[in-house]
Amino acid sequence: MNATMDFADHEVGYDIPALPGMDEADIQTPCLILDLDALERNIIKMGNYAKAHGMRHRSHGKMHKSVDVQKLQERLGGAAGVCCQKVSEAEVFARGGIRDILVSNQVRDPAKIDRLARLPKHGARITVCVDDLANVSELSAAAQKHGTTLECLVEIDCGAGRCGVATTGEAVAIAQAIDAAPGLVFTGIQAYQGAMQHLENYADRKAKLDDAIARAKTVVDSLRAAGLTPGLVSGGGTGSYHFESNSGVYNELQCGSYAFMDADYGRIRDEHGQRIDQGEWENALFILTSVMSRAIPGQAVCDAGLKVQSLDSGLPVIHGRDDVTYLSASDEHGVIEDRRGVLRINEKLKLVPGHCDPTCNLHDWYVGVRNGKVEVVWPVSARGKSY
Amino acid sequence: MNATMDFADHEVGYDIPALPGMDEADIQTPCLILDLDALERNIIKMGNYAKAHGMRHRSHGKMHKSVDVQKLQERLGGAAGVCCQKVSEAEVFARGGIRDILVSNQVRDPAKIDRLARLPKHGARITVCVDDLANVSELSAAAQKHGTTLECLVEIDCGAGRCGVATTGEAVAIAQAIDAAPGLVFTGIQAYQGAMQHLENYADRKAKLDDAIARAKTVVDSLRAAGLTPGLVSGGGTGSYHFESNSGVYNELQCGSYAFMDADYGRIRDEHGQRIDQGEWENALFILTSVMSRAIPGQAVCDAGLKVQSLDSGLPVIHGRDDVTYLSASDEHGVIEDRRGVLRINEKLKLVPGHCDPTCNLHDWYVGVRNGKVEVVWPVSARGKSY
Repeated sequence: MNATMDFADHEVGYDIPALPGMDEADIQTPCLILDLDALERNIIKMGNYAKAHGMRHRSHGKMHKSVDVQKLQERLGGAAGVCCQKVSEAEVFARGGIRDILVSNQVRDPAKIDRLARLPKHGARITVCVDDLANVSELSAAAQKHGTTLECLVEIDCGAGRCGVATTGEAVAIAQAIDAAPGLVFTGIQAYQGAMQHLENYADRKAKLDDAIARAKTVVDSLRAAGLTPGLVSGGGTGSYHFESNSGVYNELQCGSYAFMDADYGRIRDEHGQRIDQGEWENALFILTSVMSRAIPGQAVCDAGLKVQSLDSGLPVIHGRDDVTYLSASDEHGVIEDRRGVLRINEKLKLVPGHCDPTCNLHDWYVGVRNGKVEVVWPVSARGKSY
Repeated sequence: MNATMDFADHEVGYDIPALPGMDEADIQTPCLILDLDALERNIIKMGNYAKAHGMRHRSHGKMHKSVDVQKLQERLGGAAGVCCQKVSEAEVFARGGIRDILVSNQVRDPAKIDRLARLPKHGARITVCVDDLANVSELSAAAQKHGTTLECLVEIDCGAGRCGVATTGEAVAIAQAIDAAPGLVFTGIQAYQGAMQHLENYADRKAKLDDAIARAKTVVDSLRAAGLTPGLVSGGGTGSYHFESNSGVYNELQCGSYAFMDADYGRIRDEHGQRIDQGEWENALFILTSVMSRAIPGQAVCDAGLKVQSLDSGLPVIHGRDDVTYLSASDEHGVIEDRRGVLRINEKLKLVPGHCDPTCNLHDWYVGVRNGKVEVVWPVSARGKSY
């Protein structure tokens, strides 16, 4: 699964936290670890769900940024391809052998458009989102220059208020321009509602998504009336995929976080009021950290601070421990409340990060563990690829 | 200055945002840029200050994580060495030719202690902090195993409540143990007050630091009485260095952020009530970002989100613009309020990051610009080195 990795030059602890075959106890901290059993169960579960609902699943690579995780999603979960947010990520996935890649974002910079238009030469199907008529001619010129084809989704604003056109008229006009443009193919619409994914209450999420579905349906109907039936109606995340799957409008999901989970997603509730990390999905991703100081009574300090996790969605949760609590982070330290003084120097703890996507982007490696052993060490292939 | 870099294999925009000699306008975004004139002025100013006050300045490499920036601080600012927080950072600086390295942190993991004890073989003076008597024998055994010498600072808690011993008795006991331990040298004390650096009000900072100085003085006096005069009394940051420099107790500063500055430090006030980014220090570090969508009236979306900056200390500030405001960040996007619709697609903006240290740690490169040209492209040499 990791045939291209050569570990010969790596010294454990300097530039890599573990090597395959090591005992889990010998992993150097802080680092990201993956519970491979939990990860595989999550991936298989989503694959089965999508299949049972007649949905294509395009797993979101912006979350894991890993060719190896993506290949596992395709092999075990039947994922039909990947989506990502940056041209540089698409380049990593294309070079890694992924054959169906959606840049679920706008690409406007001339140099980035040029690189995007070259990518189909790697043998990959490349799709990109458009929310501005002026972008159509830019993409078309680049595709013609390189003799390639770019597929395009018209992005509609589903209520998140970030990118995407606001009106059906704009959507149809852009679709018609794409359809008429040499080198471009009109493939469908991107209708992702990002702002509601993390609302805790199921009914609140459903209300937001009902609105998104209504917007998407209006656009789809208008496109059909204009003779431009969308092949793909794509969207959906870990907090919403039930709704898109049962909408009769969407035919492709873009879930990402379900595979790893995080503390913020874990708090959202399913239709029965149950947290989704207590049944629906398992925590498969952890920050492994070690206790390094107990100088102040009642607290311990661990080696996982701001440089190994993003706190934008809250503090990490210490997995499987209700006797100690992660209180605050500085650049390299985490302060842990330990009222009874139970923690020992060099004791290891597993943190469930607050937000998986930007946390993974801080690390170079995933250490995959099973039965107490390091089974794989995967590079975070597209880490830092923001260009 | 960058003799070891070989740019031949790099394609601009895939894995590097710029190449030396390019026009500033052609830099791919998002990325970190350094205003080299401002950086050099900051470095020279701090160097002159330290010299005038008879202080050693050990610049803090945990902020920039760059061998090139450190060498500039030594060449232009007379910095006497570097401090950093992790053994893996120390390894990077030692391999990069830095000759005086302080790990201003505890090292407790056996594998990390072993690596630390090997480092003096690279020709560097290596110093480490200790806040637990049990750590002394661990360090001593490793130094003896490798036939090296580790210098040790006893870390005292100066009111931050994180690491460091709380009592003078503990400090003296640890110093005596270090002094008696083969392979170790008692070099002094680490007395850094991190929690007060970002308090806006000068008098509030002074009060906290007066307390830290009093604690340090008590420990120094007791050590002297025990026949263990500390060679180094080290501490001080960008928000406090005036106080340590005039204390008569400290003889080494550890400032980091002054060189780059950030929005959070910029807000703190000097003794005259003036913001320190309006006279004392210049903003030399920026996140360069491009506008990529204007689909929603009254706002623009740029390509700099959570994956290129840390928001732990607040949002970034758009440099030199009072007509537009950075409102919120998602993983790859920043939403900018643009009420009058002045921004254009592909227009570039310079963001002053909220917090420089964890922001720099997200990036692979510093693009150094002067007079509209890219002059240097420096690797963030110790990026991700958290082990």
